[in-house]
Amino acid sequence: MPNDGNETFDMEHLLELAKEKKYRLLKEELVELNEVDIASFIEELDSERTVIVFRMLPKALATEVFAELPVDKQSHIINSITDKELSEIVEELYVDDAVDLVEELPATVVRRVLQNTKPETRKLINQFLNYPENTAGSIMTAEYIGLKKNMTVEQCFAYIRHHAVNSETIYTCYVMDEKRMLDGVVTVKDLLLQPYERQVGDIMDTHVIKAQTTDDQEQVADTMNKYGLLSMPVVDSEDRLVGIITVDDVMEVMEEEATEDFEKMAAMLPSEKPYLKTGVFTLAKNRIPWLLILMLSSTITGGILVKYENAFAAIPLLVSFIPMLMDTGGNSGSQSSTMIIRGMAIGDVEPSDILKVVWKEVRVGVIVGFVLAVVNFIRLMIQYPGNTMICVTVVISLFCTVIVAKTIGCTLPIGAKVLKLDPAIMASPMITTIVDAVSLMVYFNLACHLLDMTV
Amino acid sequence: MPNDGNETFDMEHLLELAKEKKYRLLKEELVELNEVDIASFIEELDSERTVIVFRMLPKALATEVFAELPVDKQSHIINSITDKELSEIVEELYVDDAVDLVEELPATVVRRVLQNTKPETRKLINQFLNYPENTAGSIMTAEYIGLKKNMTVEQCFAYIRHHAVNSETIYTCYVMDEKRMLDGVVTVKDLLLQPYERQVGDIMDTHVIKAQTTDDQEQVADTMNKYGLLSMPVVDSEDRLVGIITVDDVMEVMEEEATEDFEKMAAMLPSEKPYLKTGVFTLAKNRIPWLLILMLSSTITGGILVKYENAFAAIPLLVSFIPMLMDTGGNSGSQSSTMIIRGMAIGDVEPSDILKVVWKEVRVGVIVGFVLAVVNFIRLMIQYPGNTMICVTVVISLFCTVIVAKTIGCTLPIGAKVLKLDPAIMASPMITTIVDAVSLMVYFNLACHLLDMTV
Repeated sequence: MPNDGNETFDMEHLLELAKEKKYRLLKEELVELNEVDIASFIEELDSERTVIVFRMLPKALATEVFAELPVDKQSHIINSITDKELSEIVEELYVDDAVDLVEELPATVVRRVLQNTKPETRKLINQFLNYPENTAGSIMTAEYIGLKKNMTVEQCFAYIRHHAVNSETIYTCYVMDEKRMLDGVVTVKDLLLQPYERQVGDIMDTHVIKAQTTDDQEQVADTMNKYGLLSMPVVDSEDRLVGIITVDDVMEVMEEEATEDFEKMAAMLPSEKPYLKTGVFTLAKNRIPWLLILMLSSTITGGILVKYENAFAAIPLLVSFIPMLMDTGGNSGSQSSTMIIRGMAIGDVEPSDILKVVWKEVRVGVIVGFVLAVVNFIRLMIQYPGNTMICVTVVISLFCTVIVAKTIGCTLPIGAKVLKLDPAIMASPMITTIVDAVSLMVYFNLACHLLDMTV
Repeated sequence: MPNDGNETFDMEHLLELAKEKKYRLLKEELVELNEVDIASFIEELDSERTVIVFRMLPKALATEVFAELPVDKQSHIINSITDKELSEIVEELYVDDAVDLVEELPATVVRRVLQNTKPETRKLINQFLNYPENTAGSIMTAEYIGLKKNMTVEQCFAYIRHHAVNSETIYTCYVMDEKRMLDGVVTVKDLLLQPYERQVGDIMDTHVIKAQTTDDQEQVADTMNKYGLLSMPVVDSEDRLVGIITVDDVMEVMEEEATEDFEKMAAMLPSEKPYLKTGVFTLAKNRIPWLLILMLSSTITGGILVKYENAFAAIPLLVSFIPMLMDTGGNSGSQSSTMIIRGMAIGDVEPSDILKVVWKEVRVGVIVGFVLAVVNFIRLMIQYPGNTMICVTVVISLFCTVIVAKTIGCTLPIGAKVLKLDPAIMASPMITTIVDAVSLMVYFNLACHLLDMTV
C-alpha cells in the first residue's frame, strides 16, 4: 500500500461504487479503512448517499467516523437518523468530541442531540461547555484510567482490561485518593516492568506535571511538548482530577496556534475556520480593522513627505528612491520582528533577554546595512554617473534605515510582551508603517544637509 | 506543585545548593526531578560544577539528561569523563539521540565517542547518519517492539516486559515475518483487550500507515497528525521495517517547520539553531540575499516614479499619498498570500482550488476596498477641502489597488506551488514589492486621466 501522505486509499474507486449503488461491495471496502479516510470519503457524497453510507457502518466505527466529519455533514446525519441511532452515537462519543459537536451545531439540532442523551452524559457535556475557549478545560476529555494506591499491578491490568474500550488513552494511568485528589501517575510501561503483586503506590511517580482547567491551551501544548508527554492530567481549583489532555489534541492546538500567529502577523484577526469554509464577509471583517489602522497611520508618513515638498521639488530624482528605502527598511524590520515574535512564541527568547537581543540586532544591522549600501552604491554610480552626492545621501540613508529598522523590529515585540499585549501585533505591517516614517525623516534630513537644501 | 508551564521546580534554590557545594542535598532533590528540568538546571552551571553534578546522577537518569543537553555542554562532559563512563552513556542512548550527537559534535569529540562505542552500535549510527536531512530516516529510532504473527497475547506480554526498557515506545508493536517485512500493527490496548491465548496474527491490523525512509519529515508529521498516531513505522525501499518515528519527534518537526515558514515568509533563509544561539554573521548571511533581491526589485517601482516626475512636479500633493497607497496595497496582498500559504501548508487549500480562491479574494477585495475607500474619502475631504478630484483619484486608486493586491496575493503562492517552488517565498515582502509597482501605475495613470495631466 503506497502512502503519499495524503490518501492511502482509492477515492475514485469508492465514489464509483457509491454512484453505481454497489453498496455491498462498498461496505466491504469501507470497513477495512481508517475512520479519517472514511470521513473524507463521506464528505464527497451527496446528501442522500451520505446517510445510506453512514448507516451501513458498524456502530463503533460509525461513531468514530462521525467525530471526524465536518459540522454540516454531522447536522445532516443527525436530522436523517432515528432518535435511537442518535442516542447511541452521542453516548459512544468521547466527551470532548460531544462538546465540540454541541458547540458548533445549530441550536435546533443541539436540542435534538441533548434530548437523546442520558442525564449523566448531558450533565458532563454541560459541565465541559462551561470551560472558557482556549483553556485546558475546553480541550480535555473525561475518559481516562483512574487507579487507587493500594491496587496491585495485577488488579490494575484487570481494571485496565475492563475499562480500556471507554478510555481515550490507557497508557498513562492516574492514581487518586478517595477525594479524587491526584496522588501520582503510572504508565502501562511501568506496570509491565513490575511484578504482578506490587502495589501501585510503590511504583507511581508522585511528581505529576499537570494543568489547571483554566490554564491556556497554548501553555499546555508547550509543556507537553517540552516534557514529551503523551497525556497530561487536568485538575480543578481544589486539585481534584477532572480530565486529561491527549497528545493528538495538543498537536491540533499547536497547529491552530501557529495559524493564529501567521494571521495576526499579517494584520488579520484570527479566524476559527479553514479558509475555504470561511464566508467572504467574515474574511473581510477580519481583515478591515488592521488595514484601517495601518492606512490611517501611514498618512503620517505622507505628512512627512509634504513637509519636505521643497526638497523633491528641487531634485525630483530624490522621490524615485523612496520605494527602495521604504521597502528595504520595512523588510529589514520585519525580519527582526519575526525572529523575535517566533522566538518568544516557542520559548527561545524571554523579555529579560532584551539587551542581548538589541546588541545582536544592532551588529546584524551594521553588517546587513553595509552590504546593501555597497551594492546599492555601485548600482547608483553606474545608473546616475555624476550625481555622487545624491548617491551618497541615498546610501547613508539606507545604512541608517536598516540599523534603525532592526532595532525597532526587535524592541517593539518585546515591549508588547512586557505590556501583556500579544507580540504578534508588532509584526511586519506595524513595523513597516513605523519604519517608513523614520526612514523618510532620516533620508530627507540627510538630503537637506548633504545637498545643501533648505526645507 | 504549581505549574506555570515553564518551570516546575525551584531553580534558584538548586543553584544556591550548587554554589554552596551542598552536593548531597542537591543530589537528593535532583533525582526527584524530570530529566528536562535537570538539563535546564545543568545549563546554568559553570563548567566545573557541570561535571560534578552530572556525575552524581544515577546512570539511567544521566543518559536521559545527557540527551536533553545542548551540544556545548555535551562536548564538555564528553571531554571530562572517562572512556568507560562515555561508553555507558552512548550505549544507553536511543539511536536517534546518538545520531544527533554525532552530527553536531566537533570532529575530534566525535572520534572519541565512536571509539567508545560497541561495533554493532557504531554500525547502526553510521547507517542512520546516511539518511538525508529532513527525511523520515533522519528522525526515526531503531528501538521498537517487533513481534511475530504466531505469538500469543501472553507471549507478547512476556516479550514486551523483557524488552520494554530498551524501547522508546512500547504502545504500538510491529508484527514482522522472517524477512523483517511488516505484516501488521497491534497496540498494547488491543493486546490488553484480548484473551491471553489468542495469536497476534488474528488481532493485528494489517492496514498499516507507514513511511519510507526517504519521505519528507513534514509529510510524516502531517500523516501522523491526520490519523492521530502515537508512532509510525518506517520501511526501506524493499518494505522491510527499519525504524519507527514517535509522536514527540513529530511535535518537534511541526514546530521546526512552522518556524521555517515564519522565517521564509519574512524574507530570510531558514536557520537551524534557536535565535539566541545563532551567531551575528550567520544571522546576517541568512538575511542579506532576499533583502538584496527585494531592494533591487523595488528600484523598478522607483523607475515608475521617475516616469511620472511631471505629474508630481505639477501637483506635489500627489506624492504624499504614495506611502498610504503602497502600504495598504502591500498589507492587503500580504493578508491574502499569508492565508493561502498557511492553508496550503496545513493541507486546507490545494492548487486545484485556484478558481474558488480567486473568486473569493476578488469579492473580499471589493468589500475591503470599498470600506477603506469610504473612510479615506471622508478623511481626505476634511483634510483637503476643495481638492475633490485629487481625493477621488486617491480613493479610486486605493479601491483598485486593494482588489489587485488581493488577486496577486492569492494567485502567486498557488503559482509557486504549481511550479514546485516553496509557496512561502511569495509572502509579504515579495507581494509588497510587486503590489507597490502596480499600485503606483494605477495611481499615476488615473491621476493623468482624471486631473488632465500629461506625463
